[in-house]
Amino acid sequence: MAALSLFLDVPLTREVNWLLDAYQEDPSPDKVYLDHRDCQTEMGKAWVCPTVRQTLLQIASDPTLDHEYLPVLGFPEFTRAATELALGRESRAVIENRAGGVHTVGGTGAVRIGAEFLRHWYNTSSPKQRLFSSSCCHWPCLPRWTESHCVLCSLLCPQRKRLFPFFDIPAQGLASGDLDRDAWALRHFVAQGFELFCAQSFSKTFGLYDERVGNLIVVARDNETLVRIRSQLQKQVMGMWATPASLGARVITTVLNNPALLNKWKQSLRMLAEKIMLIREKLKEKLRILGTPGFWDHLTAQSGTRSFTGLLSSQVAFLEKHKHIYLLGSGQVSVCSINSHNLDYVAQSINEAVSSTEGRAQGLSWAEME
Amino acid sequence: MAALSLFLDVPLTREVNWLLDAYQEDPSPDKVYLDHRDCQTEMGKAWVCPTVRQTLLQIASDPTLDHEYLPVLGFPEFTRAATELALGRESRAVIENRAGGVHTVGGTGAVRIGAEFLRHWYNTSSPKQRLFSSSCCHWPCLPRWTESHCVLCSLLCPQRKRLFPFFDIPAQGLASGDLDRDAWALRHFVAQGFELFCAQSFSKTFGLYDERVGNLIVVARDNETLVRIRSQLQKQVMGMWATPASLGARVITTVLNNPALLNKWKQSLRMLAEKIMLIREKLKEKLRILGTPGFWDHLTAQSGTRSFTGLLSSQVAFLEKHKHIYLLGSGQVSVCSINSHNLDYVAQSINEAVSSTEGRAQGLSWAEME
Repeated sequence: MAALSLFLDVPLTREVNWLLDAYQEDPSPDKVYLDHRDCQTEMGKAWVCPTVRQTLLQIASDPTLDHEYLPVLGFPEFTRAATELALGRESRAVIENRAGGVHTVGGTGAVRIGAEFLRHWYNTSSPKQRLFSSSCCHWPCLPRWTESHCVLCSLLCPQRKRLFPFFDIPAQGLASGDLDRDAWALRHFVAQGFELFCAQSFSKTFGLYDERVGNLIVVARDNETLVRIRSQLQKQVMGMWATPASLGARVITTVLNNPALLNKWKQSLRMLAEKIMLIREKLKEKLRILGTPGFWDHLTAQSGTRSFTGLLSSQVAFLEKHKHIYLLGSGQVSVCSINSHNLDYVAQSINEAVSSTEGRAQGLSWAEME
Repeated sequence: MAALSLFLDVPLTREVNWLLDAYQEDPSPDKVYLDHRDCQTEMGKAWVCPTVRQTLLQIASDPTLDHEYLPVLGFPEFTRAATELALGRESRAVIENRAGGVHTVGGTGAVRIGAEFLRHWYNTSSPKQRLFSSSCCHWPCLPRWTESHCVLCSLLCPQRKRLFPFFDIPAQGLASGDLDRDAWALRHFVAQGFELFCAQSFSKTFGLYDERVGNLIVVARDNETLVRIRSQLQKQVMGMWATPASLGARVITTVLNNPALLNKWKQSLRMLAEKIMLIREKLKEKLRILGTPGFWDHLTAQSGTRSFTGLLSSQVAFLEKHKHIYLLGSGQVSVCSINSHNLDYVAQSINEAVSSTEGRAQGLSWAEME
């Protein structure tokens, strides 16, 4: 028994939630948080797809469900349906049986095991190639392919002088309202014959944030390569979480495989995407009416749940200090955090921030923002 | 686009499920699998605690449940209740607010983040100290403290010449049938003032295998140290699975915090523990009647869901080759894989294996088996 702690050297870190912590500690009744990870309703609650509630109840009531461990790679019907949703049923990679999924703990889990695999098996000889930090999964994720809300996070490989495409598709359908259109970039790469990874998440699109349903899609040269890659991913998963949780994946699989439920879900997605576009329109219009300096067309030129506002870090700091509005220093916000209750206040505050701070004009082009 | 796969060098690995794969590929109608991870019923199905079904249905029916993301460290009511279940409400560490949990993806997730933390923060200067393999979480886990079914997996620290206690409590209550008795070893270490980690799982004790509910218990010198440690664990979790799934933890929390449900659950646990003890007794008795060479008292001297049989690897190979019975090369079996349908066949086969193979007498002492 030691008299002193063995962990005297472990520092306190507040890196994880500092923005949310600062918001929660702010006593102002006006405070607004613009970095929600979930899609918020008008009432500031997390959006849940109505089809989800009904399906979850049905599954929970099933007396034959035995709650046995899933296989290490997860619920096979789920990975199949999820992979086909992203790539399309007619995808050559699907037909040729060289695309497959690994059911993961959310999109983060998919990024993590994909990154660990690449670190180990893709040009491991160069230390510079260690682009994924094991603790944070940061990567140099530019250029982002934004048009289709299907983010291409390239893994640069300095020795081979070529890129390995690692996509992130966190909310397929919530950019354009159309599932196929939102997956265009990913499908284009598959059609060009690339081998690639894609981290897929269902949290936002089903409003099932707390069940952590993700999928790592692997597209390989052929089925034999796919089998080898998946065997190594399986080994990784055994040491990470052993097997994923099942209920969320069962809900999603039920919806994806039932035409009636699938249609209802697609309708919900379209409505949510339209709501997001409308918020973008309204914010732009408010800023125009207020005569806010700069151009704000990028608010509607972009799509999806998150938007770069083009605000400078000094303006972000102004918003936090003087207006109790919390957003990332990059100026990125969750569009769903803006609703009819806070829209006027947010627009007015952005106007004040831009008008009162020194800085170049707003309305950066997309390329500049990246 | 490359003509050849980028992953030509990735080997196929069958390390993960080789035993189950071999069993599944065996066409024999007599085949028996003795390495189930779940507790099996007499009918060879996964045992589910009846209280769980009822509580799950109740939670799924709750219209106020918004399915928002849990905090990074998980469902706070769950980690509190789970930590108190293991340490006891009267534990000094609990009262002094220096024990806390991190809600993890099953027991494996708890082991993984605990191991990563220790690798980073506990005597990182020595490469020999890298006892946890990041891909498999193997560790030199001896000596096991078996009496209380609370496994002490010591992390040896060669430089400091002392051990860091890392417990694994995968099925509290299933050894003796008594929750407090099964946690004795852990509580003893806490009472002695040690700082320690404990990976806790609820899969077996609730029969909720597929919801992956685990908890990493941290006992620190004081509250300030606990806060620092948890802040670093939070950072790790962000890069691993971001937040854990919630439904399973909600079910368990509901049961632990409701006296009537808690009593029902304890009763189920006692019944299951008694069933396990009875299987051990019956197997020993069968071997005695058959006149199997060796001593078999260790079958009932041990407790809990898993048992070392004391069989030699040559005898294990005999069982697989000639009797279609599949168990680990160490001779370890899941006692719950044995039921009234296969007991006679398993006992008879063990008798044949021991009688027909060369090897020293069975009935190793516990120390020898370790």
